[in-house]
Amino acid sequence: MREVFQTELKEVQDRLVDIAGDATRIMEQASAAFINSDVTLADQALASADAIHEKALSLDESVIRILARQSPASRDLRILVSALRISASLERMGALAGHIAQIARFRYPGSAIPAALLPTFQEMGKLDLELGKKVVKLLKNTDVDLAKEIQAEDERVDELHRKVFDIVLSDEWKENAMYTVDVTLASRYHERFADHVVDISSKVSYLTTGAWNESE
Amino acid sequence: MREVFQTELKEVQDRLVDIAGDATRIMEQASAAFINSDVTLADQALASADAIHEKALSLDESVIRILARQSPASRDLRILVSALRISASLERMGALAGHIAQIARFRYPGSAIPAALLPTFQEMGKLDLELGKKVVKLLKNTDVDLAKEIQAEDERVDELHRKVFDIVLSDEWKENAMYTVDVTLASRYHERFADHVVDISSKVSYLTTGAWNESE
Repeated sequence: MREVFQTELKEVQDRLVDIAGDATRIMEQASAAFINSDVTLADQALASADAIHEKALSLDESVIRILARQSPASRDLRILVSALRISASLERMGALAGHIAQIARFRYPGSAIPAALLPTFQEMGKLDLELGKKVVKLLKNTDVDLAKEIQAEDERVDELHRKVFDIVLSDEWKENAMYTVDVTLASRYHERFADHVVDISSKVSYLTTGAWNESE
Repeated sequence: MREVFQTELKEVQDRLVDIAGDATRIMEQASAAFINSDVTLADQALASADAIHEKALSLDESVIRILARQSPASRDLRILVSALRISASLERMGALAGHIAQIARFRYPGSAIPAALLPTFQEMGKLDLELGKKVVKLLKNTDVDLAKEIQAEDERVDELHRKVFDIVLSDEWKENAMYTVDVTLASRYHERFADHVVDISSKVSYLTTGAWNESE
């Protein structure tokens, strides 16, 4: 029985790693679509964001079945409850990346980013991609300690999010309202993506160290 | 043992109702603060949004303890898993309402809403408040069927969200970028608040009818 349970837990972990890989790939495509006005990549990102929802739903159902059959206690129970929360965060990350792709799609063949903000969004996209890769690593090998790096990168994303507003609200900003709306929302989506990575990292730390470090 | 468990389940339900009441009150304060540039209400909303986080965390810990001690199966297990998800949604609703209060705070003593958008945000705030009240009702008495009303109100919030963009992107919009940023984000927060209500309603329907009707 115990052996079956360990196999089941391992499968839950593998599926979380798989979904985290999907969310990261969607962000990679969405960020490139947004920066280079690439509608093909935008469409790919949107299709994958739909698929991630189904995967997360099916994983949640499996976790609930395992809870019902195995009635785990203490640490095993916490792993399964955390899996449900992590799957919800990963799904949101896919949806947020999808929203970025959607903006690129709407503005195609034009660009959604005025030149003054291009470097900022390039860095934000790069950071979100790195954060996504760190989540994959963390879920694959829960012993690694990436919490500090993730925290630092999230703070940098927050800084860039504020920088977007500084630029948009400065006297130099002469763009029309369409650009202002697009960059406001895109910046918010990038920032929320990073927040979810911090949440997942807290949950993984909690499971390995027992110290709950809620960041949200 | 069974009786203890029923008492515990009832307590979980009561605490969800309490947190839903808080989230609704925060939206009421935030919406009034945003519409009337009332900084006192904005501060109250922000303080309560912090408190809701602690309440949700403490409820989640109780639910995990019940899961560990009682090892419930089938319907009882699903109720507890749903309680964790509903508490996460309620917490986000409080945070989103807090963000709206924050915008009002930043712009005080000025208004964050240009006259052209005042009626739209009044209606959005009113709908979110009604949706919050319906969640309280639904969690208090899971037998009532409010799913259709909630669906219709959420659709109306989505319409108003699109209307905000129509107005902002029209030739008549002459406001500066600060207003554009504020109304874009405020509209998004109102829309996400309503989305969470729909999610909670699907989870409650699922528990009472067994038909999972995931909307997100």
